[in-house]
Amino acid sequence: MRATDSTGDGFAGHVFADPGLLEQALTHRSAGAPHNERLEFLGDAVLGLVVAEALYARWPKADEGSLTRARAELVRESALAAVARRLEVGERLVLGPGEMKSGGHRRDSILSDALEAVIGAIYLDAGFEACRRVVLSLFEDAVSAVPASKVGKDAKTRLQEWLQARQKPLPQYELQAEAGEEHARVFVVRCVLSDPEAAAEGEGGSRRAAEQAAAAGVLELLGAAE
Amino acid sequence: MRATDSTGDGFAGHVFADPGLLEQALTHRSAGAPHNERLEFLGDAVLGLVVAEALYARWPKADEGSLTRARAELVRESALAAVARRLEVGERLVLGPGEMKSGGHRRDSILSDALEAVIGAIYLDAGFEACRRVVLSLFEDAVSAVPASKVGKDAKTRLQEWLQARQKPLPQYELQAEAGEEHARVFVVRCVLSDPEAAAEGEGGSRRAAEQAAAAGVLELLGAAE
Repeated sequence: MRATDSTGDGFAGHVFADPGLLEQALTHRSAGAPHNERLEFLGDAVLGLVVAEALYARWPKADEGSLTRARAELVRESALAAVARRLEVGERLVLGPGEMKSGGHRRDSILSDALEAVIGAIYLDAGFEACRRVVLSLFEDAVSAVPASKVGKDAKTRLQEWLQARQKPLPQYELQAEAGEEHARVFVVRCVLSDPEAAAEGEGGSRRAAEQAAAAGVLELLGAAE
Repeated sequence: MRATDSTGDGFAGHVFADPGLLEQALTHRSAGAPHNERLEFLGDAVLGLVVAEALYARWPKADEGSLTRARAELVRESALAAVARRLEVGERLVLGPGEMKSGGHRRDSILSDALEAVIGAIYLDAGFEACRRVVLSLFEDAVSAVPASKVGKDAKTRLQEWLQARQKPLPQYELQAEAGEEHARVFVVRCVLSDPEAAAEGEGGSRRAAEQAAAAGVLELLGAAE
């Protein structure tokens, strides 16, 4: 993204039909109303959806927990601030004199909020699809760069790696029950660790699914689900 | 919403081009893959945006904090479960035998997740605008019913009401500083409570804006920001 894409009534290639929206999005609350906080609320939601969908499409096997964690990482304050710096948002921000003196235009929180506000402004200016294209242009590299280790791996694999990294013994998966008719079989598996001591049960329509559920349960106990 | 809107390949008035998406959205993980957890991740984001925009439009004066709290209330698990019950989601859910026996189709968490998954499925099936219309039809009454006391009031008003409800003395607003050129004035105001003892400073481009910021700071100290 070249800085030339983001001058005057334009931002990241989008030219505003209503330049007042862009102006508001770039106005910090310290400079008085109308400032960008409401637009930030809206933009945060747009960004959340666009990144959610991009991850959903990019990682067809990733479970919900992995997708949630990957998204949180992509839209965390420092990541958004980095995008905002690339777009030279700081140079265009309108701040109150106090914030200006204390270097507010370089602060992660202010830059990240302003970027979200601009996304909200583009959404209001041009609708979801146009805004989605802009957001994807800003975030698709980051989405593509999410390592498979974060989202591509199932719970059993992640549990195994967690244990190996700590030179701990591998888990035991014990079939606890198997019931139901042929077409609606249910399996209950218990995943047991000896060190650290932990165990959880999982249920599923196949033995493998039940093992995955049990491993996910143990990962949660370990606080290693992330 | 009549139950007849939600039979076969239809849900809340939307008829699926790809009925497999609806089927997946109504399949709990206990019934095996493909289940609805990934769709729930997507639907949660769609719902978040649609409700955010509806609140943004409905309450043009509400600040970001109020909007955030109002949305959290509208999309909390029990509220979503109530919508899911209205649409008879429980009757259509596919659960594993274990969840079936333990009454999973009546559980708030399972119903709420399934509703989000169906919203995600409609988004994939028909795009944002179509999904937005369905979500609004389900939530517009709830959005309209958000009381003004939650979102319509500014921080000074909310602080005053909080104190009056507890028969406490009203706050003092003290101008601490006033600086800057004519066109870029900055005000610093301190909001002071005597009982409970609390104080916070706020800054703004007008005295009133600085007072609002200071009151918001005190509300946060009181844990009464919600």
